This record gives sequence, C-alpha cells and structure tokens, in this order.
Amino acid sequence: MKNTSLNRRKFVKDTLAGAAGIAGLTTLPLDLLAAPNKIIVSEESTTSGEVRPSLPPKIKFAVIGLNHGHIYSQVEAVIRGGGQLISFYAKEDDLAAAFTKKYPQVKKARSEKEILEDKAIQLVVSASIPDERAPLGVRVMRHGKDFMVDKPGITSLEQLAEVRRVQKETKRIYSIMYSERLENKATVKAGELVKAGAIGKVIQTIGLGPHRMNPKTRPDWFFDRQRFGGIICDIASHQFDQYLYFTGSTQADVVAAQVGNVNHPQYPKFEDFGDAMLRGNKGMGYIRVDWFTPDGLKTWGDGRLTILGTEGFIEIRKNIDIGGREGGNHLFLTDQKEMRYVDCSKEPLPYGEQLVNDIVNRTETAMTQEHCFLATELALKAQQQAKSISI
Amino acid sequence: MKNTSLNRRKFVKDTLAGAAGIAGLTTLPLDLLAAPNKIIVSEESTTSGEVRPSLPPKIKFAVIGLNHGHIYSQVEAVIRGGGQLISFYAKEDDLAAAFTKKYPQVKKARSEKEILEDKAIQLVVSASIPDERAPLGVRVMRHGKDFMVDKPGITSLEQLAEVRRVQKETKRIYSIMYSERLENKATVKAGELVKAGAIGKVIQTIGLGPHRMNPKTRPDWFFDRQRFGGIICDIASHQFDQYLYFTGSTQADVVAAQVGNVNHPQYPKFEDFGDAMLRGNKGMGYIRVDWFTPDGLKTWGDGRLTILGTEGFIEIRKNIDIGGREGGNHLFLTDQKEMRYVDCSKEPLPYGEQLVNDIVNRTETAMTQEHCFLATELALKAQQQAKSISI
Repeated sequence: MKNTSLNRRKFVKDTLAGAAGIAGLTTLPLDLLAAPNKIIVSEESTTSGEVRPSLPPKIKFAVIGLNHGHIYSQVEAVIRGGGQLISFYAKEDDLAAAFTKKYPQVKKARSEKEILEDKAIQLVVSASIPDERAPLGVRVMRHGKDFMVDKPGITSLEQLAEVRRVQKETKRIYSIMYSERLENKATVKAGELVKAGAIGKVIQTIGLGPHRMNPKTRPDWFFDRQRFGGIICDIASHQFDQYLYFTGSTQADVVAAQVGNVNHPQYPKFEDFGDAMLRGNKGMGYIRVDWFTPDGLKTWGDGRLTILGTEGFIEIRKNIDIGGREGGNHLFLTDQKEMRYVDCSKEPLPYGEQLVNDIVNRTETAMTQEHCFLATELALKAQQQAKSISI
Repeated sequence: MKNTSLNRRKFVKDTLAGAAGIAGLTTLPLDLLAAPNKIIVSEESTTSGEVRPSLPPKIKFAVIGLNHGHIYSQVEAVIRGGGQLISFYAKEDDLAAAFTKKYPQVKKARSEKEILEDKAIQLVVSASIPDERAPLGVRVMRHGKDFMVDKPGITSLEQLAEVRRVQKETKRIYSIMYSERLENKATVKAGELVKAGAIGKVIQTIGLGPHRMNPKTRPDWFFDRQRFGGIICDIASHQFDQYLYFTGSTQADVVAAQVGNVNHPQYPKFEDFGDAMLRGNKGMGYIRVDWFTPDGLKTWGDGRLTILGTEGFIEIRKNIDIGGREGGNHLFLTDQKEMRYVDCSKEPLPYGEQLVNDIVNRTETAMTQEHCFLATELALKAQQQAKSISI
C-alpha cells in the first residue's frame, strides 16, 4: 500500500466505515484500527467498551486467537454473562498488543499450551483464522474445557466429523457464536415472538447478509477460500443458523446453491457472491450473502431477515433502516390485526449468560449442540454443492 | 357461503381489504364488489377512474374476457396511451353489467366473433380465465389484431409453443401486462436508474410477491392449478419479468424451484407457496410468491424488489412501506456516495402509450416479444420443474 497522505486518509476512512457497527468504537485502541493486514475490523460486534462482568464471576475463561475483530464482542458476551477473563494468547504481537490495551488486567500467556493446561480455565474463546478454529477446538475439548468460537466455527465436512466425534467423547461444549442472531437484539426478540405464536406456523425465512469488503483492511487469508471456507461457509453460516432456529427444522436439505467471484478478478481465490435454497422438515429457506455493500451505506451491511408465517410475517432490519429510523435492531411485525414496529435496541442479549450457565450446569440453553452443528453442516454442504457462477 | 349479516359484513370488509390497491376504489360500481364468485378484485390495479384518453385516440380497441379485475387497469393503461375503447364481450352477464357501469359508452358485443371480425379494432385486451388466454390470443392474432393480456398470459409450454408460432407467422403483438413492473411507478423508475448505471452492473435480483387470498371473493377457477397454471406460472410471472428486465439476461436457467399447498388443505388443487432460484447470462435471481398476506397489512401484499449491483443496491417497496411512509411506489437507492429515498408516486407509467405506439408503428418499445415470451417460458419451466413441498 502506498503511504501517501491521501491513501492514509482514505484508509482511515475505509476502516472507520467498516467499524461503524461497533458501538464503543471510541474506546478501541488506535492500534487496532492501524493494523490493516493483521486484523479484521468487526462487522457484527456490538462491543460496549464494558470490561467488568455484569454478574458476579461464575467461570474463568481465556482467549486464544485474535485474528478477527469479532473476538471483542465474543469476550464482552461472556463477561456480561458472568465470565472472568484470565488470560489470552495470540501468535501475532500487534494483535496481542491491541488486546492488552483493551484489557490491561488480563495476563498474556506465552503459549497456547499454557492456557490449555491451566486447570482454572473452564472456557476458551477464539477468533483465530477460520480453518484453524476446529483443530484448536478439538485440542481445547481434549483438555477438558468448553469452547466458544467465532463463525465460521468449522471450515470443512472432515473437520465437522472430527469435532462431532470429540465433542461426543468429551461432552464439552463447542459453541459457535452466530452473532447475527445471538448478538442482534431484534433477532433475539423475533425468536420470542415466533415462539409465542405471533405469526402462526413459520413457513419460510429469507436471510440476506450483505457485507462491506474494505479490501485494504483485510489480511491475506481473507481472500483465500481455503482459509475462510468459502463465502457460504463463512458469512452465510449466520443465515443457516437463523433458518433452522426460526423454522424449527431439525432436518434440512440444500435444494440448490451457487457461489462465485463476479467482480473481483484481482483476488482469484475470493468469492464475492453466494446463495442457497433450502427445504427442511419444518419450513423452507433462502439465503443470499455478498461483499457488495456500497460506501454510501452508513454501516457494514443492510442485513435483513424475513420470517413468513401462516398468520403474519416479521421483517428485521438488523443494522440499519434505510431511509427510516436511526440505529439498528428494527423489527416489523404484521399479523392478522395490524402492523407493529418494535424498537429492540433496549432488548437483552441472553447468549453470554446462557452459555456461562451451561458451562456451570452442563445444560444447553444457549444453543443445542445438535443445532450448532446442523447449521454448520448445512452451510458446508451448500458450499460444497454450490455451482460456480460467472456472469 | 352463509348469508348471515355477520358474514356479509365480514365479506364486504375482506373484499374491500383486497381492493385496497385500487386507487380509484370509490368510483368502482358496487356490483363489482358484490360478485364474489365471478370476479377477482384486482390486487395490482392502479385504476384512476379516468375514462377518457389522455392523448388523442390513435387506435381503436376492444375487450374480451373480464374474469380478473386487472382488466380495469389494463383498459386504463391503453386509454391513457391513446386507445379508444369501442366494444367488449364477456360470457358472464354480471361481469358485463359491472363493466358497462364503469364504461357506459362502450358497446357490448353479442359474441367474441363480432369483435374478432370488426376491422376497425386493432387491439384486443383480455383478462379471461388464465388457461383460456393463450387460445384466445391465437384467435386474435389470426384475425390480424394485436393482443394485450393479463398475466399469466400463457399457462403451459404447449400453449407457449403455439403462441410463439402464430406470433411469428402473423407478426402481431402478444403483450403480457406484467403489471408489477409496467404499472408500478417505482419499478419503472428503477429501470431508468439501472439503465443509467446508478448501481453499476446488476448482479442479482430478489422479487417477493406475497398476496392476500380473500378466499370468499374468489371464483372456483382460482383454486384449480389447471386453470391458473400453478402459483409460479401465475403470480411469479411478474418476478420473472423483473428478473430478466433488471439483470438484462437474454438466457437463463431455473436452478431450482419448489411449490406447495402448506396451509390450505380445504383447497386440494391450490398452491399457496412457491419459490425459484435462477441463473442467467447477465445475473442471478431469486423469487418467492405466496398467498399469506395477513389481514393486518393495509394493502394486498408487501411486494418487494431488491436489485444488487456492483456499485450499489436498490430496494423497491411497491405497495406499502411498513412502519414508514404512506402509500406505495417507494424506492431506496444506496450507492457509493449515499442513501437516497425516491418518492415515485408522481412518475409516469409509459407502458400504455408505448404499446399504442408499437401498434401504430409496428415497433416493440413497450416490451420486446422475445422478452415477453422468455419471462413466461422461465415461469412455466420453473412451475413444471418445481419440487413439491410439504411441511
């Protein structure tokens, strides 16, 4: 990258645009924003800058792998839920330095092994490079600890088989933080409404996950489908999670899927578009993901979820209401009686606390293991079966 | 139907709710609303109540077949464009009476033949029962006249082959009024914007066409897929048209399609849900249609179109902006610079005038014949290939 003043200003602008989803942006260390080739600035985080646990500490946890900015919202979720962050490890010195600035009280371990062998630690949280996540999770579970990982939590069907086997053997929790549901207040609220029968029986969901690319802030692995697993495995894993969750399907088939690199020939191993059609035992689904969010959008992506029921429909505008209300977390419910807008910005996010309680009680209230793996299995199958697009 | 006072009130309410899309509702004869088993109250019409041509009459035209309320907006479009309505024919006396109330100056022909053999008539407009439309169109073209028909304009691939053959032989115009584009001001505006390069190269479109069912106002043929051609052939024909139009595709394949009757077992020959995934030489597409618009929506369906381009995206909220602005015809454009809302309620609708000019000049400015048939061919293929859903 040329270091002209103009480029520098443009880079900072691009980076800030990409980070607009982070509520507590001003509390992030500048180094985080100044490490374009090392960290991915989070698209989905809702980091509040809050460091102390909201609840009395119930478990101790550590972090291994800081390669995606999602790590900050993952850590915040566990802290909010009653986790005490003890230590962390990252291979990359600059990522470690940024993390230390954010959490100065947290011990920097000298190796992954030091964390894995620390008996006090019950949970390891990770946002390592995607294809390294499942092998790490296997090591974590074999050391008797639970694991919470950024999506995509697993990048191949072979990794999935291994993770499933080790999880069954060890009875540890392997939780993938599908943050576009678990950390989006409107989507959480939609879950309650659907469960309460607000729109009758769910027939179908449509999940759209457009993302801003910010190529200058992306590390090399971002452009290599072997590392991120392909666009459907990567960003659409959120939408597969939501499809299963809202339809209540426990079995599903990929009816069709497509992926392609339609406008980024300079990155031949990249994929910028993907979509998939689904059919399950409790409803249908359609998913589209892409890297085409234009610069004029005030946030990283106009994420939408539409839930069609026999007695009504819900639309969620996750991050922005174009031409409408400020902020994110917008829910629109239309039923047999009326159209209702629900501002979900004050709704709670229960995932962190549920996960911490699951770790303490050996329950699965945050997400069943079965659901966690099935969502990923569908994403991996769709990625594998996807026909290649060229236009 | 039981004729209790309660049922009667409910029927009128349902009917009015279904007719809410008609801007000039108060000008419609009451008989139209009181003939539940004979006419389908239009979902898409934008009838203004205007009877006189806006332009000096350039052609004379007639109507055959009044079985769907769309006929009123079809007639209005031609009148606006310079057509003079001379005569009409309908088998059903009550439908004919309603039409006469709306157009008292128009001659009621004694037979279809009387219209077909009237040398003064250049164009026949029809909203007959869907499976009778193509055979009528063939007769019209063989009589040297042009034909403009409600969608679905053709209900089987066999009909399509025959229509294509006769159209080629006779060089007559066979125009299907895909009204969700041609008679929706925001969609027309989107066409101009896309053509002008506002969002770069189009990558994909998503078209959603939810409809209110109003079962009590529907005639028997409405529930029989042999008559309406199936849900994809019927209502999704709009979305296939828009997919081809906005991507500019001249060849396309149906990647996958599904149809089913998921919640209306009382109508075993009905289909209440359908979707399809497309790939063309200039872009991808996804389409979903259904009959699940709940009563709480202020209009017949929250129709949406999303156009994803390399440099931006457009969302059209065709009929309603839930929780937002009044009325329909809302366009939201996000590009590399900004998010812009465009109120399209004052935009012109050029289809009627273009069609009339095409009839006079033997051009194809309103819609190429190739496009008209390809949109229908894709819808028919998707319908035929669709896997059957049950949940």
